Amino acid sequence: MVSAASPVAVIGAGLIGVSWAALFAAVGGHDVRVWDPSEEARAGIADRAAAMTGQLAALHALVDRPLTICTTLEDACTGAAWVQENAPENLDLKRGLYRQIEAVVGPETVIASSTSALVWPDLVEGMSDASRFITAHPFNPPHLMPLVELFGTDPGVIGRARSFYEGLGRVPVVLKRPAPGHIAGRLSAALWREAVALVADGTASVEDVDQALVNGPGLRWAVVGAHMGYHLGGGDGGIEHYLATLGPSQERRWATLGTPALTPEVRAMLIAGIGQEAAGRPVDAIAAARDTATIAILNSLRKPT
Amino acid sequence: MVSAASPVAVIGAGLIGVSWAALFAAVGGHDVRVWDPSEEARAGIADRAAAMTGQLAALHALVDRPLTICTTLEDACTGAAWVQENAPENLDLKRGLYRQIEAVVGPETVIASSTSALVWPDLVEGMSDASRFITAHPFNPPHLMPLVELFGTDPGVIGRARSFYEGLGRVPVVLKRPAPGHIAGRLSAALWREAVALVADGTASVEDVDQALVNGPGLRWAVVGAHMGYHLGGGDGGIEHYLATLGPSQERRWATLGTPALTPEVRAMLIAGIGQEAAGRPVDAIAAARDTATIAILNSLRKPT
Repeated sequence: MVSAASPVAVIGAGLIGVSWAALFAAVGGHDVRVWDPSEEARAGIADRAAAMTGQLAALHALVDRPLTICTTLEDACTGAAWVQENAPENLDLKRGLYRQIEAVVGPETVIASSTSALVWPDLVEGMSDASRFITAHPFNPPHLMPLVELFGTDPGVIGRARSFYEGLGRVPVVLKRPAPGHIAGRLSAALWREAVALVADGTASVEDVDQALVNGPGLRWAVVGAHMGYHLGGGDGGIEHYLATLGPSQERRWATLGTPALTPEVRAMLIAGIGQEAAGRPVDAIAAARDTATIAILNSLRKPT
Repeated sequence: MVSAASPVAVIGAGLIGVSWAALFAAVGGHDVRVWDPSEEARAGIADRAAAMTGQLAALHALVDRPLTICTTLEDACTGAAWVQENAPENLDLKRGLYRQIEAVVGPETVIASSTSALVWPDLVEGMSDASRFITAHPFNPPHLMPLVELFGTDPGVIGRARSFYEGLGRVPVVLKRPAPGHIAGRLSAALWREAVALVADGTASVEDVDQALVNGPGLRWAVVGAHMGYHLGGGDGGIEHYLATLGPSQERRWATLGTPALTPEVRAMLIAGIGQEAAGRPVDAIAAARDTATIAILNSLRKPT
């Protein structure tokens, strides 16, 4: 257990790092110490975390626990029971950080990486004790989205990670083996590949593909997963009946899926299509509307948050 | 316009047909005439539609308009302004129905097929007037899910279809060319292929893949589409920045996606995995919970319904 008294270190104060920090402090009640090498980033942490804490108030009973902003990695990590690393997706950079962190923390400290693209076996190279290292990938933004994807090799450490993230109202999912993009990133990439193909081959506009997703399968997948969806699609006979009757047609469909390349022409179609869909709304306004809707859904489902 | 006074014919009283019928009558206020060749199916229509109408009461102000159950296709279609066909996915069967329907209806009547797997050019073969025929694919169950995917060749007919389905609180999306599975079925197939691959290659269990989807990208896609998601992932620089910095890594990810086959071993893994996830709950109980959650989300978003 990471008790609320034990400090939690947040390494890197980008979007993910600050979101984690807000959640750790306001929902977990942890003593959170945030470090970022950029003075400019450090200067903005308090305000950015406060805005996220404001969103969290719609979902949780909050603890009023201020963040500690540290000017060195050593200050942030000394005495920490948990370290959440959110550095840029650069293997050498992350490996260097783990060496620095290991030099400071005690033997029981878990080092968790928020990496979306890199995998455990590559990241641990050069560590003195790889068993304490896990990947713990949140879905952006971590303070709102329940999913955390875990991989590590020590069952005791994975057990502690489950407790830690569940204590923050997250839904941890443990991979049985590392995969680039974990689960969610791979599902997203698979879906987006077909979404790009449908635009590239002239079937539909960017906006219409998004509308179809949001009002159809996306809405469904907020409630039941893809596997369960096909189980329900099989009626009383479930997945077994579905596979027996429609398995072959599903395999034929798979064979027709698009394999687009992001050529200059396709990129131009995507950029122009997003321009139409955004209709003048800046990115931060769309993101704010997304967060508001996400909070409304989470409240409506009373999902663990 | 299909005025509320003009009859709407529903051909086929399976899950989709009855769901459409309930929506047409209770939300659209239409005079709905339902035909199914099976006497047993006809006998169950009223009760099944009533259960769906009960769900609709949570989302809409309803019109109290009973369905007319017809014993012949001719009775259902005579005088109809709109025909929604929901027969099994059998090309010859559907073509035969269209010939029967065309022999009965007037020249202005639109014939719309709910087909999920068949495409417009194949379906219209043998029709006297293909311009009045459209595919109008709902997402199951049609009375709850907003999406309707349209394709037809006559812009006037497509315009009437937009009005008709919007008048029922649906969100129509018009394809620029026919595609097997339309948009939603293709996105679903693409995602499920990777979901199956992750189980087949031992990365995660059926239940964990579903959990990752529901608590991560699925929840997100109920709010913003996949294209818009990557736009937001590009930060202030949007999709252009995303493509410039992460486009190549996305293409590399696409190249690593799984291409599983539904072998007996993979089928067994999926069936066993669903068994664990369902944990003894029968299909209809899971479907009922899905519908309750869908209604809660639609209410929370105040989506057009």
